[in-house]
Amino acid sequence: MTALPAKVTIWEVGARDGLQNEKSVVDVQTKAEFVRRLLAAGLPIVEATSFVHPKWVPQLADAAELMTMLDNPDLPVLVPNERGLDRALELGLKHIAIFGSATETFANKNLNRSLDEQFAMFEPTVVRAREAGMDVRAYVSMCFGDPWEGAVPIDQVVSVGKRLFDLGASQLSLGDTIGVGTAGHVKQLITAFGEAGLGTDALAVHFHDTYGQALANAYAALEVGITTFDASAGGLGGCPYAESATGNLATEDLVWMLNGLGIEHGVDLDSLVATSVWMAEKLGRESPSRVVTALA
Amino acid sequence: MTALPAKVTIWEVGARDGLQNEKSVVDVQTKAEFVRRLLAAGLPIVEATSFVHPKWVPQLADAAELMTMLDNPDLPVLVPNERGLDRALELGLKHIAIFGSATETFANKNLNRSLDEQFAMFEPTVVRAREAGMDVRAYVSMCFGDPWEGAVPIDQVVSVGKRLFDLGASQLSLGDTIGVGTAGHVKQLITAFGEAGLGTDALAVHFHDTYGQALANAYAALEVGITTFDASAGGLGGCPYAESATGNLATEDLVWMLNGLGIEHGVDLDSLVATSVWMAEKLGRESPSRVVTALA
Repeated sequence: MTALPAKVTIWEVGARDGLQNEKSVVDVQTKAEFVRRLLAAGLPIVEATSFVHPKWVPQLADAAELMTMLDNPDLPVLVPNERGLDRALELGLKHIAIFGSATETFANKNLNRSLDEQFAMFEPTVVRAREAGMDVRAYVSMCFGDPWEGAVPIDQVVSVGKRLFDLGASQLSLGDTIGVGTAGHVKQLITAFGEAGLGTDALAVHFHDTYGQALANAYAALEVGITTFDASAGGLGGCPYAESATGNLATEDLVWMLNGLGIEHGVDLDSLVATSVWMAEKLGRESPSRVVTALA
Repeated sequence: MTALPAKVTIWEVGARDGLQNEKSVVDVQTKAEFVRRLLAAGLPIVEATSFVHPKWVPQLADAAELMTMLDNPDLPVLVPNERGLDRALELGLKHIAIFGSATETFANKNLNRSLDEQFAMFEPTVVRAREAGMDVRAYVSMCFGDPWEGAVPIDQVVSVGKRLFDLGASQLSLGDTIGVGTAGHVKQLITAFGEAGLGTDALAVHFHDTYGQALANAYAALEVGITTFDASAGGLGGCPYAESATGNLATEDLVWMLNGLGIEHGVDLDSLVATSVWMAEKLGRESPSRVVTALA
């Protein structure tokens, strides 16, 4: 038997990556209650929102209002650039995340930059954030496959990740943005990062369940020593019956597995399920989480 | 990295375990076409139906008519008892499966027998089948958890499995009938069977996705050498939005993982997805398979 970690950290992304990708927009009071309920359920890290331009993500246009209401500087927020950082600084926040791309095409489409240019774009954001005493997480998107380029070479992902880390990130979140990756690929990528000097302490994994692989991939990541897992309460983040299905790994399904494996995580499953059922009602759709469906 | 098998066998159960648990009843012509399409998609073993009493499973009341239409004695069928065996013998079939229980309560509820009495009940069926030159598979249900008894002790499952094997079964299919098992438990159970003298050649695994664990459990089983996997095209077998959600592992989600792992299986994914989309239309509901949803 492979020795698994005794304890892991769940990085809850439902309020940001989840709600950002839902069709329905929920009001700011509901978002604040959602974040508070997630914290009350024992989730140690709840990424709350994104300071992205409302033109691109209207669902999160109330980011500043939400953070003011929550009045909790420890909650991480995504900032796409220096303007986002300015808003986070004004609010006295302490944890930001940036969102990079492992592929040329997605860097182009999402950041309007080349793969190389994105580092120059992120540099002042990360440097200023670090100077202000902030902690910076770097998402690396499209780490496994890309809709335009197909399979993404492992050395390319490691190179991008290392450059983002070297800018001053404290953790990389390796994302399978389109959910195509499988368990062996996960192990290979994490092993390659280790060989390049970035061990599992510096890495998190972020899986989407588009092809049903998210939990199997999380298990594979556990087996190679990963201890930080991104997940989304109730599997928020893309309706599974839409063409662009990109649902996140459901936190509840991850928690069920961790409970079975005897791995500590601090989350109360019943509270979490109740929160996801409540949010599904607000969104007017069923949760795609199997555990939520089974226990609700 | 763990060495995985180079090749596996998918035992397709959609036509039997799948349709038996769907609310909608499809006509016998549709069932015959379903089985033929599954074979054409490259599935090596397609369990076609069950000779159970129509009072218990009205969905499969047309079993004899279906097998006559298919005219293929190599397709396995489930037989609950000697009366079922008689019908399989009359039709000249060569492969049967019996359905045992790993727990006292489920043996009582499903077979109206005690855990011990089930072996006496199965014995004449298995003996007569073997004398007739038939191959016998034994399903062992509730191998991980039981709705009435909770977690099922591993030594109890091994004991039941071994007794069914010793009656004359050629393969055990270890079923997580209510889908509660997790990856570590899967490895422990398979390892315990090995220590009791039943190696992975004699074992198959049968996972349900009720708590989202099916594919992670399949990966765990692969890692300890299992090479036969039960799966259901399109995840047929229990609507994921019903209270009694008990959907089978979707064959497509398994195939996606096997493709990524480079493990040979012989199935054409596009043909299979097309078949599941066609069957979902007949049943009037969306497929719960993530891969079917993404590719359809």
